Amino acid sequence: MSQPPVVPLVEYDRASPQVRAVYDDIMATRGTDWINNFWKVLAHDPALLKRTWEGVRDVMKPGALDALTKELIYVAISATNGCDYCTYSHTASARAKGMSEAQFMELMAVVGMANQTNRLANGLRPPVDDAFLPRA
Amino acid sequence: MSQPPVVPLVEYDRASPQVRAVYDDIMATRGTDWINNFWKVLAHDPALLKRTWEGVRDVMKPGALDALTKELIYVAISATNGCDYCTYSHTASARAKGMSEAQFMELMAVVGMANQTNRLANGLRPPVDDAFLPRA
Amino acid sequence: MSQPPVVPLVEYDRASPQVRAVYDDIMATRGTDWINNFWKVLAHDPALLKRTWEGVRDVMKPGALDALTKELIYVAISATNGCDYCTYSHTASARAKGMSEAQFMELMAVVGMANQTNRLANGLRPPVDDAFLPRA
Amino acid sequence: MSQPPVVPLVEYDRASPQVRAVYDDIMATRGTDWINNFWKVLAHDPALLKRTWEGVRDVMKPGALDALTKELIYVAISATNGCDYCTYSHTASARAKGMSEAQFMELMAVVGMANQTNRLANGLRPPVDDAFLPRA
Amino acid sequence: MSQPPVVPLVEYDRASPQVRAVYDDIMATRGTDWINNFWKVLAHDPALLKRTWEGVRDVMKPGALDALTKELIYVAISATNGCDYCTYSHTASARAKGMSEAQFMELMAVVGMANQTNRLANGLRPPVDDAFLPRA
Amino acid sequence: MSQPPVVPLVEYDRASPQVRAVYDDIMATRGTDWINNFWKVLAHDPALLKRTWEGVRDVMKPGALDALTKELIYVAISATNGCDYCTYSHTASARAKGMSEAQFMELMAVVGMANQTNRLANGLRPPVDDAFLPRA
Repeated sequence: MSQPPVVPLVEYDRASPQVRAVYDDIMATRGTDWINNFWKVLAHDPALLKRTWEGVRDVMKPGALDALTKELIYVAISATNGCDYCTYSHTASARAKGMSEAQFMELMAVVGMANQTNRLANGLRPPVDDAFLPRA
Repeated sequence: MSQPPVVPLVEYDRASPQVRAVYDDIMATRGTDWINNFWKVLAHDPALLKRTWEGVRDVMKPGALDALTKELIYVAISATNGCDYCTYSHTASARAKGMSEAQFMELMAVVGMANQTNRLANGLRPPVDDAFLPRA
Repeated sequence: MSQPPVVPLVEYDRASPQVRAVYDDIMATRGTDWINNFWKVLAHDPALLKRTWEGVRDVMKPGALDALTKELIYVAISATNGCDYCTYSHTASARAKGMSEAQFMELMAVVGMANQTNRLANGLRPPVDDAFLPRA
Repeated sequence: MSQPPVVPLVEYDRASPQVRAVYDDIMATRGTDWINNFWKVLAHDPALLKRTWEGVRDVMKPGALDALTKELIYVAISATNGCDYCTYSHTASARAKGMSEAQFMELMAVVGMANQTNRLANGLRPPVDDAFLPRA
Repeated sequence: MSQPPVVPLVEYDRASPQVRAVYDDIMATRGTDWINNFWKVLAHDPALLKRTWEGVRDVMKPGALDALTKELIYVAISATNGCDYCTYSHTASARAKGMSEAQFMELMAVVGMANQTNRLANGLRPPVDDAFLPRA
Repeated sequence: MSQPPVVPLVEYDRASPQVRAVYDDIMATRGTDWINNFWKVLAHDPALLKRTWEGVRDVMKPGALDALTKELIYVAISATNGCDYCTYSHTASARAKGMSEAQFMELMAVVGMANQTNRLANGLRPPVDDAFLPRA
C-alpha cells in the first residue's frame, strides 16, 4: 500500500549471524520478540546496524536523566525534524514507558513554542545577553 | 562588537505602558529585575510581545511535565534548529532550574542520536510498523 | 573581527571579465555602485555566479506577485532556515523596497506562528482533510 | 488508508464545552460549517487548542500585511519545512483567499531560490556587509 | 491512492511548445523516453521549469566532481531535509549511475554521523579553531 | 572575543586518563599534535566523546567510498544545516584531503540546487514515479 523502503527489509531468518546477534540483543534488551523495521533496513550494513543500536541502547538507558525524559526529547526532535517514522515509533515508545496523554500534549505545546521562538530569535537577532554567557 | 539586532532594543524606560506591563509580568513571574534581549526586540509589536510571553509563561509552567523537563526539551529543539540565541538562553535557564552538567551532557547525547536516526529513517524509509500505529 | 569567509572575496578590480559582466549587471539592475559580499564569494565559480544571479534577478522581479511581497517571503524563509547573512541582507532589501516596521513585525509574527503549527502537525499527524486535496 | 493520527480526532459531538467554544469560533470566524483535522487533534489539550487558534486567528487577520500575503508566507514556510499537512491546508487557504495559479508558481520559484541561496551563504560564509547592518 | 499533487501533472501531449522543448531536452540529455513527475508539476510555470532544468542539467554534469559523486551529495541532502520525492528519485538516479548498495549504506552512515555532530556543535558551541579559518 | 562555548574546553593537561586516551587516538589517527575544540567540549562526557570519536573515525575511513567523497558529503550536510563550526572544520578537512577550489565550488552548486529542488518537491508534492520505487 505505502511506498516500499529504499532497501529491502532484512528479516531474522535470512539475516547473517552478525546481524542476528544485534537483533538478539535488541530483543533481549527490550524484552520483546520482534524487530521493528528501522533495524531491518540498517541491517544491510552490519557495522552501521551494530554502531547505531549500541549508541541508542547506551544513550537511552537511565542515567542522569531517566528513560522517559530521554524518550520525550526524542519525540520532540522527531516532530521538529518532521521525521514520519521516528514520530510514530518514538511516540509509541514513550507511551510504553508511561507517557500519559496529558504529558504528550504538553510536550507538543513545548515543541510548538520552541520552534516559534527559535525563528523569532533567528529573524530579529537579539544579541545574547551577558547573563546567559557561560563563564569560560 | 557583534552584529546589531535587526530592530533596536526597546529598553524599559523608553517603553510604552503596554510594553511595560508585559516587562513587569516577566520580571514578577521570574523574580528578576531585568529583561533579556529577546523580549526587547519583540516589543516593537506589543501584541506579538504579549502573545509570545503569555504563551511561553503558560506552556513552561509545571503541569503534567515539570519545569526542568520542559526546559530540557527547549534546549534540545534549539540545538536541533541551530538557534544561537536560544541555545545560550535556554541552557542558562535550564541551569538556573537545576540542570546538572551530567544531565546537560546526556541531553546532548540524546540530541545527537535523535538527529542521526531521524536522517537514517528519512534516507532509508522503513514503513511504520503496525505495532507503532495508534488505534484510531 | 568576525570569521573570514570560506573563500576570499573577489573584488571588482581583480575580477575576470566574465565576473565583471555579472557584477555590472547586478549594479545596473539595482541602480547601485557596489556589490555585496554574497556575489563576491560566488565569483570563484563564474558559472555559479551567473546562474544564481540571473535566477535571483528573474525570480524577484515583479510578476504575478509584486517585488515587496517576494522580498517578504525571502525574509521569512531566511529566518526559518536561520541563515544569518540572508536575514540581514534580505531584511535590508525589504526595507529598501518600502517594508514598514509594522509590516516587518507582522511578518515575524507569521513566521513564528507557521513554524509552531508546522511542528504541531508533524508531531500529531492529522490526516489531510479531503476538502484540502486538489482535484487531480 | 493512510496512517492514523497520533491522537484520535475529537469530533464536535463528543467535544467538551470548552473545545466546542473554540470550534464555534473557528467556524464563525471562517464562515464555514466544519472543522479541519488540525484542530481536532489539538483538542486533546483544550488550552493548547485555544491558545493556538487565537494566535492563528489574530496573526492572520489583515493588518499592515493583507490576508493573502500572510497566507503566501505560511505556504512558503510549510514548503521549506516539508510539512505535508500544512502544505495542503495552507495552499487550499491561499487559493480560497484568491491566490491565482500564476501567483502560486511564482511563490514556489521564490521558495526554491531562497532555499538555494540560504545554503550558498551558509556554506561560503560571506561577512554581512556594513550596508546591511541596521543602525543600532 | 496517495495524495494528489498540489497542481495537476502536465503531460507531454497536453503541454505547450515551450514546455515540450524542455521535456525533449530532458529526454535527450538522459537518453530516456519518459518524464518524471517533478518536471510535470514545474511545467505550470514554463520559465521555472526551464530555469530549474537547465540548472540541474548544468550542475549535475561531470566537472571537477564526477556525476556519481554529485548524485550521492544530492541523496545526502534529500535525506537530511526529509524530502520524500527527492530521496526516492535521487537514490534511483544514483543507482542508475552505478552506486553500489555498499556505497549507499556508507553514504547513509555519513549522513547520520554528520547530522549528529552538527547538532552536538550547535548545542555546545565550541569556537572555530584558528587552524580551520581560511586565510582571508 | 567571540562567545564562549556552552561548556569549558577540556585541555589535554587537565583531562582524565579516559579522555586522554581518546585524544591520543585522535592525534595518532590523524597524525597531528593538537585536538580541535569540538572534542574538547564533548570531553565533559567521556562516554559521549569516545562513542562519537569512534563513530566518526570508523565512518569516515575509506571503504566503498573514498575519504574525500565522504568529507564532501559532510560539508554538504553542514552547509544545509547551517552549522557554523562544522562548515569551517569540515571544509578545512576536505581541503587537507585534497579538495580543489573548483571541486569546492561545484560542491556548493550541488548543495544549492538540491536545497532548491527539495523545496519545490515539498511544495508541489508530485507523486513518486513508479520507476523510482525500489522493488520490495
